[in-house]
Amino acid sequence: MTPAALPTYADVQAAAAAISGTAHRTPVLTSTRLDDRVGARVLLKAEHLQRVGAFKFRGAYTALSAFDDGQRAAGVVAYSSGNHAQAVALAARELGIPATIVMPLDAPTLKVAATQGYGARVIRYDRYTQDREQIGREIAAESGATVIPPYDHPHVIAGQGTAVKELIEDAGALDVLVVPLGGGGLLSGSILAARALCPQARVYGVEPAAGDDARRSLEQGRIVHIDTPVTIADGAQTQHLGELTFPILREGVEAVVTATDEELVEAMRVVASTLKQVVEPTGVLGLAALLSGAVPVRAGERVGVVLTGGNVDLERFTQLVAQ
Amino acid sequence: MTPAALPTYADVQAAAAAISGTAHRTPVLTSTRLDDRVGARVLLKAEHLQRVGAFKFRGAYTALSAFDDGQRAAGVVAYSSGNHAQAVALAARELGIPATIVMPLDAPTLKVAATQGYGARVIRYDRYTQDREQIGREIAAESGATVIPPYDHPHVIAGQGTAVKELIEDAGALDVLVVPLGGGGLLSGSILAARALCPQARVYGVEPAAGDDARRSLEQGRIVHIDTPVTIADGAQTQHLGELTFPILREGVEAVVTATDEELVEAMRVVASTLKQVVEPTGVLGLAALLSGAVPVRAGERVGVVLTGGNVDLERFTQLVAQ
Repeated sequence: MTPAALPTYADVQAAAAAISGTAHRTPVLTSTRLDDRVGARVLLKAEHLQRVGAFKFRGAYTALSAFDDGQRAAGVVAYSSGNHAQAVALAARELGIPATIVMPLDAPTLKVAATQGYGARVIRYDRYTQDREQIGREIAAESGATVIPPYDHPHVIAGQGTAVKELIEDAGALDVLVVPLGGGGLLSGSILAARALCPQARVYGVEPAAGDDARRSLEQGRIVHIDTPVTIADGAQTQHLGELTFPILREGVEAVVTATDEELVEAMRVVASTLKQVVEPTGVLGLAALLSGAVPVRAGERVGVVLTGGNVDLERFTQLVAQ
Repeated sequence: MTPAALPTYADVQAAAAAISGTAHRTPVLTSTRLDDRVGARVLLKAEHLQRVGAFKFRGAYTALSAFDDGQRAAGVVAYSSGNHAQAVALAARELGIPATIVMPLDAPTLKVAATQGYGARVIRYDRYTQDREQIGREIAAESGATVIPPYDHPHVIAGQGTAVKELIEDAGALDVLVVPLGGGGLLSGSILAARALCPQARVYGVEPAAGDDARRSLEQGRIVHIDTPVTIADGAQTQHLGELTFPILREGVEAVVTATDEELVEAMRVVASTLKQVVEPTGVLGLAALLSGAVPVRAGERVGVVLTGGNVDLERFTQLVAQ
């Protein structure tokens, strides 16, 4: 697979082999109360119970495990609003690779502390005025380290796709698949897995209403860039899709829909009270759009939803869900 | 098995067969962060993810599935602070048995609503002035219904024991087992399972510090009765052990220790932030005593802990864990 080529399901299968025994095979959660509310069978892939508390570990470990000896010695650089940072930091520690992580000043305390706890060097930046990609490139140029971007990378996309591969293997064929969307890495990998394992499934991406660049990109047939959106979904504050994720999305999604911050809070409340799970705002994008009706489902359909992460400070969580 | 005889591990095995395919086989949760904090390998049996949100479904379904035709027609009566009520209500609905549940006036709204939602008739009483057992007996005498008590019943004890049977089967042998304790139904069943499957394990019961009747009962060699304890652990506000649970505990536990309300809140915070789980105050009794050091463990030991239930109103949960 050359870097420029689009990843395929064979790459997802290779990623599954690479992460086997290292990443958790997370459970699929269900609730008859939730099913009654939605009017369909909802199958939730619990990636907030993945290592580092998010699906991002899958892609990071897949990418780093493919490093050659020179790359391993020179190290890895990543820029991330949080979960990708922790994922690269932990994967690097497990593989003995030095890691430098570029993180925004307003990233959740929990995510910064966890990243440092995994032994990575953390460099902070202002996400509203500075360009994290440029900072990452400069560090890489100085040190010879390899940049692993958070979504626009074939190994990262293939690794993220293993979550939906497992979901379909464990829960059976789906009629609908609903996946949160920032830069589109998870959604692209999910499309590769769904197309191979249950090609009839309708795949929906869900992004924050405050940052609907993916929806507009699909409408306009080009990658639309936006200012950093202001939303509680801190893991989906991306400004644009990638050169790899855009064409995969364009071919593979039924539609991209959105969820408001209010809908995210309501979904967090449903997840906490019905499923007894603490999920971060970004993590419930998919469920929020299902609950709001933005993702249309027919009675009795089997609907897969990825809960993507759980890394929210407990104080922040209680503030958000308290009424 | 006659009602007066103590249940054995054979009864736990029979209960496992009775609930198979109806009760969930709940997951065993782990966290390296939690292990680091405790200094041991902590294996948490996630019974808050059981049907009705608590282990109580195991015992209730076991007991009701043993009803003969006459009992099924006349119905079941149960008295409970909540989770046993929901468990009997759901088990009764699944088996087509009419159910009447006697619940305290201050039971959590969520638990009362859920019990009614399962189709049971609910009768309320004041737990500080009225005797729920007498109310239950009167209803039974009038209607011919069978009373299923929350803990002092051989089928209930055997059914609750299936949780630890699964824990040991799925996670492997344990050095220490820590189990929350109200009337002792779960702890008794757990002792039966542990004694059969890993007899070397040290079994600890944990009750609220405000209601340490079990600890005193073991010290005094007789069943000590206390006033209804005032604690946030609403599922363990029992006033005394049972005629069946007391002798099983006396023979099987290493010790009964206690946890304060403050320690329960701290454990709820740890479970929410580290494991991303919403567990009710009673549900973390075991973990609270492990974190406080009330349950002694040696470095590297394998420690099983039962998280017993998750039925806490979201508002109450956020009040408790917010700092």
